[in-house]
Amino acid sequence: MKQVYFDNAATTPIRDAVIERMTEVMRLQYGNASSTHGMGRSAKSLMETSRKTIASFLNVYASEIVFTAGGTEADNLVLRSAVRDLGVTEIITSKLEHHAVLHTVEQLQKEYGITVSYVKLSDNGVVDINDLERLLQSSNKSLVSLMHINNEIGNKLDLAKVAALCKAHHALFHSDTVQSIGHYNLDLQTIPIDFLAASAHKFHGPKGVGFAFIRKGSGIKASLLGGEQERGYRAGTEAIHNIVGMETALKLSYANLEAERKQISELKTYFIDQLKRLSPDITFNGNCEDSENSTYTLINVCLPIAPEKGGMLHFQLDLKGIACSKGSACQSGSNQNSHVLSEILSPDYLLKPSVRFSFSSFNTKEEVDYVIGVLKDFI
Amino acid sequence: MKQVYFDNAATTPIRDAVIERMTEVMRLQYGNASSTHGMGRSAKSLMETSRKTIASFLNVYASEIVFTAGGTEADNLVLRSAVRDLGVTEIITSKLEHHAVLHTVEQLQKEYGITVSYVKLSDNGVVDINDLERLLQSSNKSLVSLMHINNEIGNKLDLAKVAALCKAHHALFHSDTVQSIGHYNLDLQTIPIDFLAASAHKFHGPKGVGFAFIRKGSGIKASLLGGEQERGYRAGTEAIHNIVGMETALKLSYANLEAERKQISELKTYFIDQLKRLSPDITFNGNCEDSENSTYTLINVCLPIAPEKGGMLHFQLDLKGIACSKGSACQSGSNQNSHVLSEILSPDYLLKPSVRFSFSSFNTKEEVDYVIGVLKDFI
Repeated sequence: MKQVYFDNAATTPIRDAVIERMTEVMRLQYGNASSTHGMGRSAKSLMETSRKTIASFLNVYASEIVFTAGGTEADNLVLRSAVRDLGVTEIITSKLEHHAVLHTVEQLQKEYGITVSYVKLSDNGVVDINDLERLLQSSNKSLVSLMHINNEIGNKLDLAKVAALCKAHHALFHSDTVQSIGHYNLDLQTIPIDFLAASAHKFHGPKGVGFAFIRKGSGIKASLLGGEQERGYRAGTEAIHNIVGMETALKLSYANLEAERKQISELKTYFIDQLKRLSPDITFNGNCEDSENSTYTLINVCLPIAPEKGGMLHFQLDLKGIACSKGSACQSGSNQNSHVLSEILSPDYLLKPSVRFSFSSFNTKEEVDYVIGVLKDFI
Repeated sequence: MKQVYFDNAATTPIRDAVIERMTEVMRLQYGNASSTHGMGRSAKSLMETSRKTIASFLNVYASEIVFTAGGTEADNLVLRSAVRDLGVTEIITSKLEHHAVLHTVEQLQKEYGITVSYVKLSDNGVVDINDLERLLQSSNKSLVSLMHINNEIGNKLDLAKVAALCKAHHALFHSDTVQSIGHYNLDLQTIPIDFLAASAHKFHGPKGVGFAFIRKGSGIKASLLGGEQERGYRAGTEAIHNIVGMETALKLSYANLEAERKQISELKTYFIDQLKRLSPDITFNGNCEDSENSTYTLINVCLPIAPEKGGMLHFQLDLKGIACSKGSACQSGSNQNSHVLSEILSPDYLLKPSVRFSFSSFNTKEEVDYVIGVLKDFI
């Protein structure tokens, strides 16, 4: 049966060159990076090269990159330490953030009694910058946590604008950039952001590895305690194969960025056009139809299908070999509506099925045609 | 140059079959285990099979195994939640624990003001069971955290005895079993332990993955917040390739356990004999010379070399291609003495160089002979 993988915002296939490099590292470089003998130094050297490479893409110091087990851990590390160690008493965020941010913030509110403010959003889920500025007037020591690319609806935040605003109001700024690292160039010397979180498996790297960018002198401290790995920011023997895999994947992502962006953007435009032809009643959730203000890597569509029939849509797509998502992958296992769509859609639209299709350079127009064909039969 | 890897307590070479299986999973099973479509279900199914396999070796329920990024995270998860969520107000531990336990306990003491009691030890670093029983008389809600196999000196704790004692005194019992899982059979239906921590890279599996055993109904809650992965115990997209690699490694470890234990035990005995022949002044740290009360996988020796010459020993061994450790790998990067040896050795012995040699089935007698030859030139 035909298999179409349109769920790249949940996770991406690993590039062959990444797998080959990881296999090589696993075979030959099994030293513990904390050991001082040759095998250990060799592992450490690989790891530090990875750190330098990754730092260079963001135009930051290698020492500002802290390897973690993924984006979730990076978000937790930054947010928890900001409250515990940096005296942050207010977190300003949005209801559309990933649960790695939202649930952590809720827990910190319980544990530390911090103030949590949610910035106003437009109907399309766009952050209201005026409201953010109003919230930043607060006399609390604040941290703003707003994601660059929303993982469900693809809305793109103006990072530079928000970073400048935070700086002007002496607030710290953290961004979950899990959906943008490897897909967008970020120059962190130009953008005065304090922290960000990234995950390798969103850019054709391995699962179980990511990193936090922690700007020099921030005062962030570890949450995982033990050995002195990661210069004290994060204990635990480093997964060299995964770290080198992440480096390899990021190198390939940035080497091919323009070509792949063009290819994927064209695919997205083509998909939108075909959907519009299919039915004028199809609507696009969030900003995803707007190529300027959303990522080129995904669309989230609300289909004109009655609820009783719509409930079977994902099952039917799956039967036809089409991998896509109801919301984010973290949600798709549950029966709940996506918290993002619940926030921005009116009740009548929430009753209709919404689908997120997310792309990589491995996808083709033929795959779009196949999906359109299947949807046609269904609508 | 000859290369001898005698640092298996720091980390082990990955078995070829493990690498092959991981490569296969990375190529073909890239779905996100939280996705409900076929690719996701297939990844989830692999992961749940791994969980069942691992649970079966410990004779526990699959639902009692929580995958983590390694042993350190597992230790942190259990200890932190025990204090935060289970009302533990006293932790009873030992000064010889791994830093993943000691530093976490110190931090919890600072954050929550819990009582921390360190059990008395014999000169050889053996836990004084009578003192443990005395400490357990306390009216505090207690958790005991004592490792099964000490990573530096190899001392083996009588887990069943300590578990029974804890149960009799209504105390929780956590054990860092990072050095024993894959090397010893543990039947957790017989041993009433509440929690344990394990790490795949200590039994020829990949780095960056481990697990916590959390007994059903314990009430432990997540420290990493985000998605609903691991039934809410630990957020973050699961590293399927690493988890399956850990399963494969554990299967091979237990399939070959008796044969490999015999081979490695013989190697250890041979090494001890050769060292004794080399010099009657060589002493063995902790219990490591005692085959009953220490692990078969390592020795830790104090060499009769003057401090000024001893300072060069590790450098010289490294030059000769011998990978071994001053203490634990987590320590060997620092100039500090091992906290374990500092606790049990008298000052004159602490001045002499101590070396930990740790073995796997990949080692040979010829390697021991080579090391003995190098030490001979040095002593």
